[in-house]
Amino acid sequence: MPVDTRTTLEHDDAPVRYDVTDQVATITFDRPDKLNALTVAMGDRLFALLRRADADPRVRAVVITGAGRAFSAGADLAMLAHTPVEGRDSLIVSPENGPAMIRSLRLPVIAAINGPAAGLAFAVSLAADVRFVAVDAKLSLPFSRLGLYSEYGSAWLLPRLIGAGAAADLLLSGRVFLGAEAGELGLAQRVLPAAEVLPAALDYARDLALNCSPDSLAMIRSMIDDAAVSPLAAHYAATVPVMRAGLRAFDFDEGVAARREKRAPQFHERVPGDTDRPASA
Amino acid sequence: MPVDTRTTLEHDDAPVRYDVTDQVATITFDRPDKLNALTVAMGDRLFALLRRADADPRVRAVVITGAGRAFSAGADLAMLAHTPVEGRDSLIVSPENGPAMIRSLRLPVIAAINGPAAGLAFAVSLAADVRFVAVDAKLSLPFSRLGLYSEYGSAWLLPRLIGAGAAADLLLSGRVFLGAEAGELGLAQRVLPAAEVLPAALDYARDLALNCSPDSLAMIRSMIDDAAVSPLAAHYAATVPVMRAGLRAFDFDEGVAARREKRAPQFHERVPGDTDRPASA
Amino acid sequence: MPVDTRTTLEHDDAPVRYDVTDQVATITFDRPDKLNALTVAMGDRLFALLRRADADPRVRAVVITGAGRAFSAGADLAMLAHTPVEGRDSLIVSPENGPAMIRSLRLPVIAAINGPAAGLAFAVSLAADVRFVAVDAKLSLPFSRLGLYSEYGSAWLLPRLIGAGAAADLLLSGRVFLGAEAGELGLAQRVLPAAEVLPAALDYARDLALNCSPDSLAMIRSMIDDAAVSPLAAHYAATVPVMRAGLRAFDFDEGVAARREKRAPQFHERVPGDTDRPASA
Repeated sequence: MPVDTRTTLEHDDAPVRYDVTDQVATITFDRPDKLNALTVAMGDRLFALLRRADADPRVRAVVITGAGRAFSAGADLAMLAHTPVEGRDSLIVSPENGPAMIRSLRLPVIAAINGPAAGLAFAVSLAADVRFVAVDAKLSLPFSRLGLYSEYGSAWLLPRLIGAGAAADLLLSGRVFLGAEAGELGLAQRVLPAAEVLPAALDYARDLALNCSPDSLAMIRSMIDDAAVSPLAAHYAATVPVMRAGLRAFDFDEGVAARREKRAPQFHERVPGDTDRPASA
Repeated sequence: MPVDTRTTLEHDDAPVRYDVTDQVATITFDRPDKLNALTVAMGDRLFALLRRADADPRVRAVVITGAGRAFSAGADLAMLAHTPVEGRDSLIVSPENGPAMIRSLRLPVIAAINGPAAGLAFAVSLAADVRFVAVDAKLSLPFSRLGLYSEYGSAWLLPRLIGAGAAADLLLSGRVFLGAEAGELGLAQRVLPAAEVLPAALDYARDLALNCSPDSLAMIRSMIDDAAVSPLAAHYAATVPVMRAGLRAFDFDEGVAARREKRAPQFHERVPGDTDRPASA
Repeated sequence: MPVDTRTTLEHDDAPVRYDVTDQVATITFDRPDKLNALTVAMGDRLFALLRRADADPRVRAVVITGAGRAFSAGADLAMLAHTPVEGRDSLIVSPENGPAMIRSLRLPVIAAINGPAAGLAFAVSLAADVRFVAVDAKLSLPFSRLGLYSEYGSAWLLPRLIGAGAAADLLLSGRVFLGAEAGELGLAQRVLPAAEVLPAALDYARDLALNCSPDSLAMIRSMIDDAAVSPLAAHYAATVPVMRAGLRAFDFDEGVAARREKRAPQFHERVPGDTDRPASA
């Protein structure tokens, strides 16, 4: 039985569901009658739930998905149209409270893009570690067609996922493309029939939770981000102490023993907030 | 009727054509009997025409292509062979006057690679935002076979388009590859029969000109380049004021209204030279 | 006849073969009964042999491969399991003596991944310039399943080869994937039947040795690495003097003449240690 930690009131104000099963937290945009279009409150709740998962030692991986047939249509344009200019600052997620915050979590995050995804919600998926996408999902980052820019860190994230040319194509034109193309571009790590997206993402997350060291997962995410803007020599030097510590830690002996004995490893429990991140000089 | 702003004398000395139609400037290497091999004067004129387009508020996108069956065979080797060693500095385009200058323009630039492309001309296309390529076009960056290096910023541009392994393969070996492979590598954003390359590139450019905010296009290009070498946190922080300004600007209200009313948007006219670029600390 | 410079004693202690034929050095992991699993001594010898090749003016390219049916199973886990915790520092290759050292060589390095490759040995191939991979080779970076991190610079190298999403997938999950997928991801520059991998890699290396300027190859590698973490403007400015020098050098005249005369070029002999690397400010 899933452990459901949602608070009904919170959910009613900001329909985003939170469930924990098998050490995997699933966060679900839950406004299917509006294709899960995001209100400001839903965005706030999404990021709060990600922080909750990251602080919960029982959770080892997170899956983000949408209820019904859509992932999310992005920020709710009807809401935006009715927000006076002077009040729109609250629509801007801050650096600490926007998609980029996903990169500072310890937990691996999998986006299960079960259907259409656009704008803010799609940008959230760009900050996830991997994306599982429905083959026929309609996807877009339509900022240029709305007079907006490369929002929510997408100018940083997208070129690093699919290269600068494909990123420029998608961001400049704001065109709609399908999940199948997302797979060809390397944006989707798995392309599947819509009904199989969430189950496959949950299987993947459970494999991470069961068979991978939580400490390894946290450190690997952190190392990838450190390496993104460091010279190789600086990154390598910063990670030598990390590699040394890894070879002396319990999880390594356990991992080698489990492999030799052909059994599942029993790694150290996850300790939220405990990563010493490598920091290249 | 196209507005043709070419100057005959200039064109005769440096055969590069310039036409503006439907808010799209088309720049055409026009020396088809030499496969559009570039002289120093043609290179100078190319970059001058790009600056002209960028300064013209009527222009919203640029397409670069070649007359006849080639895009361009690159720098004219016959000319190079007859230039004494002491005079070759003029062959080196300066940072302000080489392919990298394309990255400092406000306008989106589409390369329509209708046929063979090599060397300098191909490097120009690497600095464009997107590349439409003929499926059977023969392409190469043959620098290593000529005793040259990774010229014109290609060591920076190519790995960011296709990854470091494919870039090393093409730059170290200098081998010839086809448009079809350029598509598989992510170097070409569209791969088409040769006759369809320029029409498709013009359609794409017209869509940007008609349906995308000129201010958005300029800022998105600039944000992608800022993000290329900034830490995510610094880039995000630098772009929060940009995102805030976007939500308060005319183009956003117009974009949302046009979408709601299912009509083409009437964005603010393009203002050359007016972008406040984000600059990560 | 190949010039075989191996030292029998060295080889017996650390079974890594070294042969030079046709200006190409081939380095072969030679412990086929253990799927070429690497001992500390083998790692040391690998890096020593790479330095030897780089210092030998007769060598113009390096191929790394495995004897028998495997490339290498990675670090020898049986050995690791028997090394007491306090002695494991010697297992950590230092920045100067790990896979990242390949990036500081002047010679182009081709990995001929003829069969299964994992862990340390696979990380070595990530630092090579290009990878030729057997279509059915089983590949993995199983660090997270062993309680380890993104070892040996893999967090830096892998995202630059295949993008951040595919890299996160492979590094977080540590899953096994095949050579065919490595090709789709852009990790393998050629995917071939196992028996054709080494011959094709040697052909490629011989083409570099015969037809490309050794000075060009060294400088292009160096420029790619400089560009990886420099702003475009700084990289371009740093490479203008390099481009200028190239146009005045013997190899350029020879390269143009050879092309005009449709003959193989006779470039300047390779001078080990002689590259003035571009260094962006």
